[in-house]
Amino acid sequence: MTPPATKVTPISGFPELLPAERLLELHFLDVVREVFELHGFAPLETRAVEPVERLLGKGGDADKEIYAISRLADEGGSGRDAELGLHFDLTVPFARYVLENAGRLAFPFRRYQVQKVWRGERPQEGRFREFTQADIDVVDVGELAPHFEAEMPLVIAEAFRRLPVGEFRIQVNNRQVPEGFYLGIGLEDVAGTLRIVDKLAKIGPEEVAALLVEAGASDEQARLCLALAAIRTEDLGFVSQVRALGVSHPTLDAGLEALSAVIAAGLEQAPGTLVADLSVARGLDYYTGTVYETQLLGSEVWGSVCSGGRYDSLASDGRTTYPGVGISIGLTRLVHLLVAKRGLTASRSTPAAVLVAVVDEESRGRSRAVATALRARGIPCEVAPSAAKFGRQIRYADRRGIPFVWFPGAGESGDQVKDIRSGEQVDADAATWTCPEVDLRPAVVTR
Amino acid sequence: MTPPATKVTPISGFPELLPAERLLELHFLDVVREVFELHGFAPLETRAVEPVERLLGKGGDADKEIYAISRLADEGGSGRDAELGLHFDLTVPFARYVLENAGRLAFPFRRYQVQKVWRGERPQEGRFREFTQADIDVVDVGELAPHFEAEMPLVIAEAFRRLPVGEFRIQVNNRQVPEGFYLGIGLEDVAGTLRIVDKLAKIGPEEVAALLVEAGASDEQARLCLALAAIRTEDLGFVSQVRALGVSHPTLDAGLEALSAVIAAGLEQAPGTLVADLSVARGLDYYTGTVYETQLLGSEVWGSVCSGGRYDSLASDGRTTYPGVGISIGLTRLVHLLVAKRGLTASRSTPAAVLVAVVDEESRGRSRAVATALRARGIPCEVAPSAAKFGRQIRYADRRGIPFVWFPGAGESGDQVKDIRSGEQVDADAATWTCPEVDLRPAVVTR
Repeated sequence: MTPPATKVTPISGFPELLPAERLLELHFLDVVREVFELHGFAPLETRAVEPVERLLGKGGDADKEIYAISRLADEGGSGRDAELGLHFDLTVPFARYVLENAGRLAFPFRRYQVQKVWRGERPQEGRFREFTQADIDVVDVGELAPHFEAEMPLVIAEAFRRLPVGEFRIQVNNRQVPEGFYLGIGLEDVAGTLRIVDKLAKIGPEEVAALLVEAGASDEQARLCLALAAIRTEDLGFVSQVRALGVSHPTLDAGLEALSAVIAAGLEQAPGTLVADLSVARGLDYYTGTVYETQLLGSEVWGSVCSGGRYDSLASDGRTTYPGVGISIGLTRLVHLLVAKRGLTASRSTPAAVLVAVVDEESRGRSRAVATALRARGIPCEVAPSAAKFGRQIRYADRRGIPFVWFPGAGESGDQVKDIRSGEQVDADAATWTCPEVDLRPAVVTR
Repeated sequence: MTPPATKVTPISGFPELLPAERLLELHFLDVVREVFELHGFAPLETRAVEPVERLLGKGGDADKEIYAISRLADEGGSGRDAELGLHFDLTVPFARYVLENAGRLAFPFRRYQVQKVWRGERPQEGRFREFTQADIDVVDVGELAPHFEAEMPLVIAEAFRRLPVGEFRIQVNNRQVPEGFYLGIGLEDVAGTLRIVDKLAKIGPEEVAALLVEAGASDEQARLCLALAAIRTEDLGFVSQVRALGVSHPTLDAGLEALSAVIAAGLEQAPGTLVADLSVARGLDYYTGTVYETQLLGSEVWGSVCSGGRYDSLASDGRTTYPGVGISIGLTRLVHLLVAKRGLTASRSTPAAVLVAVVDEESRGRSRAVATALRARGIPCEVAPSAAKFGRQIRYADRRGIPFVWFPGAGESGDQVKDIRSGEQVDADAATWTCPEVDLRPAVVTR
């Protein structure tokens, strides 16, 4: 069968990695999973699709971004299936999963979820239509203890400290702070005001002030909104800075107290990691309390690489409400930016640490036996694909970054193994040879 | 924001697991990945979508099964994007990836790929519309060495022996055997004949004979086709059994030789694992040589849980051809059947091995310090969500299957830890206490 001559081209917004880059991404996934599991988050995976009506209206401009799916053979539509769409995040499906399985889950329920999501937005650098998110969330029944709001960013900080991302800051705000503040200065349209202030980083304070006034705010109200959004402290100083603006409202008090608790926990457990940043708003509608964003220092232009917040009514069946808090690493985005902008990759393009050479096709069985013995002790290896000249077999290893080539019968009394980086070749026994720990897995390197 | 009152119901064919079942599935994924990496397969992930025209005609009835995607906001169609569909397997996207990146890959290229695929077929027990496949493939440029055809099923056998799937047999055939045989007895429509004989397990020999005669075969030709399909040997005996049917054709000779090489390798390296089964055909069009299917003994009615074969022209840009061979574990199918039919699950619903109790909210920091010390030594744990009575905190652990509860300050000179299964409670220091190896990760258990 000859395939049709479809042109083979990348699809904008649907990124793919080369093997060494995928090994780097897997390292990130492994670290993130290990930290999540050390903290007792249970793994979960939800289906890729949800009913479109469940996706709609859950996430700001979500309706513009949803990919609907339909069976090709069904075109014209039998109308049998409800309309389905690919999920655009992992929080909305998780909330649905909690409602669907509430009777079979133990609460508070801690889960992590690492999956692809899809958004039909315009692709641009670091923005994809298909990408992997790595989420943790805790949900409870009726009430959710506030200490979980401090825990989420600290788990992320632990993962990030184990990853080659450099210095980072997790910015924390609480939606009740701007909400109470806006109400306290007489601005009733909280959501509208928040949406305008959210554009601060993009369009600057003058434009934001103009938009606020256009929306009905006085010059003084606009000034106060900008003054609030400018507050940013690594300690609890933000409280007095807000108080100094002379605004008071019970919701503002509640927000400042909640935010103080999160920042205080950060100061105690991971100094220098959390920052109270009163400009952080998050686009998604469903957040009701604490919100998080994360910046890599020196790469702030990349935007947030890890975001989330508290949602009190995303999961509700009308009688019972399951409030939750969660945070999500934009993994594809993070890895692609580190590859493209900081030149990160893996030290080789295969898990194999050893290539077992083949002397001639008749003795392939002997080489295979060496490989079996190495694998039995956890050493990833490959048998050479052909009994080519040794020079070619060494080149095979070199092209893939495989550090060792094993030569059966090369020594006086047995095999030898060569470190092709140093050229050093020594006698070795497949039953006892130890691969240096540092070479056992591909390492993270800079190109 | 109150969510719309969308009814929360499962979607037929889009399965989801409870946390303990997902931990079981993760165990399968971990074992499979470990074995694939030990054998030097590089990890790869391709985008979930391909141009529909690339998916069409690649896999038997594929056109009936493809899910097309479209941006909801685009309804009516701007016509800007080429029509995209979700992939229905991992082989077609892999072949496309090889063509697209041929200049940046080292050949022969060994890769594994574990991803969701989607098929719009009618859901039934063990058949899903969304499921995970775990594939290995080797592709080369121009020619592919035959030893790879023996290697594929033996790697799978190694993975299966490490998994709680019980006894299994990998059935191997070579498409050249029936092809040469049919030509040798004068049946020119090889594909049509193969399609009919492929129904043998479903409809039985009488029906197959009737369909063959209906399609133009003589009674004697139909009898010979059935006689060939009935041959099944664990050793090389199949060769003389085919010869005894008195048919000869050069393609048949080539097929018997290739199949003998695979079965001989199996006899040598993993006796009792491979079976020459001349009834195996595989539905997908693109296979050209060796084909594989896998049955779990005692659960043959489940059908094949791992299948694949050699394809010589799936990846071709017109000038260069990249022949390949691969095999694919139907992981979702396998895990769901083992959960539903053999009662497998994980011993707990969380990775946490220890619940650190909280005496009162004021001392939560002390409990958190215990958890941090345990995690630093790789012990997954959780701090109790509230300072409830110890009985309730123990119940919290018990409901999740967490084996140990840690009580800060419960001993005369420090902490104590209780094995809540035996009730045994002993003095313990978070800096030195060792979690029994068997309890560190959830175990596979039968309900």
